[in-house]
Amino acid sequence: MLTRIDHIGIACFDLDTTVEFYRATYGFEVFHSEVNEEQGVREAMLKINETSDGGASYLQLLEPTREDSAVGKWLAKNGEGVHHIAFGTADVDTDAGDIRDKGVRVLYDEPRRGSMGSRITFLHPKDCHGVLTELVTSAAVESPEH
Amino acid sequence: MLTRIDHIGIACFDLDTTVEFYRATYGFEVFHSEVNEEQGVREAMLKINETSDGGASYLQLLEPTREDSAVGKWLAKNGEGVHHIAFGTADVDTDAGDIRDKGVRVLYDEPRRGSMGSRITFLHPKDCHGVLTELVTSAAVESPEH
Repeated sequence: MLTRIDHIGIACFDLDTTVEFYRATYGFEVFHSEVNEEQGVREAMLKINETSDGGASYLQLLEPTREDSAVGKWLAKNGEGVHHIAFGTADVDTDAGDIRDKGVRVLYDEPRRGSMGSRITFLHPKDCHGVLTELVTSAAVESPEH
Repeated sequence: MLTRIDHIGIACFDLDTTVEFYRATYGFEVFHSEVNEEQGVREAMLKINETSDGGASYLQLLEPTREDSAVGKWLAKNGEGVHHIAFGTADVDTDAGDIRDKGVRVLYDEPRRGSMGSRITFLHPKDCHGVLTELVTSAAVESPEH
């Protein structure tokens, strides 16, 4: 069951400049940053609020590490902006399976590694009214037996 | 001070079909719906979680009521997808003023009426790394003396 807006993924050309924009304009600070080579992104997570399911909502700022990454290609086509939205769940495997059974294309056969040790998958935007949609199970919040 | 992700605004061609997609796929239910003639939209708010500032995070599904509305023009150009993101604050007037003083263009001279009696304004996406950004003070959550 999806229980929170986990994050909004925002693609940018220069991560440092964009982080500074969010800090200077709104006071949002970097909670975590990492490079995800598999996804081809350098990213910063800005924690905005905590959520009623025990998790939190973030902005995820994404700079591609290579032009042929998914985010790199998206940026070249669309310019900077909202790249995807993500819902948090305690059990990404079950939810992804249930959603696949409803006829929505799930992009990975098995969830992959996301920010902060989470497990993630994506739903095809053409099956979701134009919205690239991520499902996330956080390593920090949800217990491993799920 | 911006204290939550208030909502993600998603533009769609047909509100009923899109509401049904979110219900059937994820189990999200309509919390509130209304027509905002000033904004030129028919909308449905799906409440996803409550937030640590006493508010909540929603998906806001938006169907234009006329082609020449902002959302109607955006849809004709971009197709369905994420139209804007919104941050919640107890005091949209002060925050909008502070952000304007930092050189970011605020689209309204004074906040206007948003969903569920809220007061809203927008920041120019070209000043926000491509993200149309809304600031919201909820009528339900924040006290009137703010």
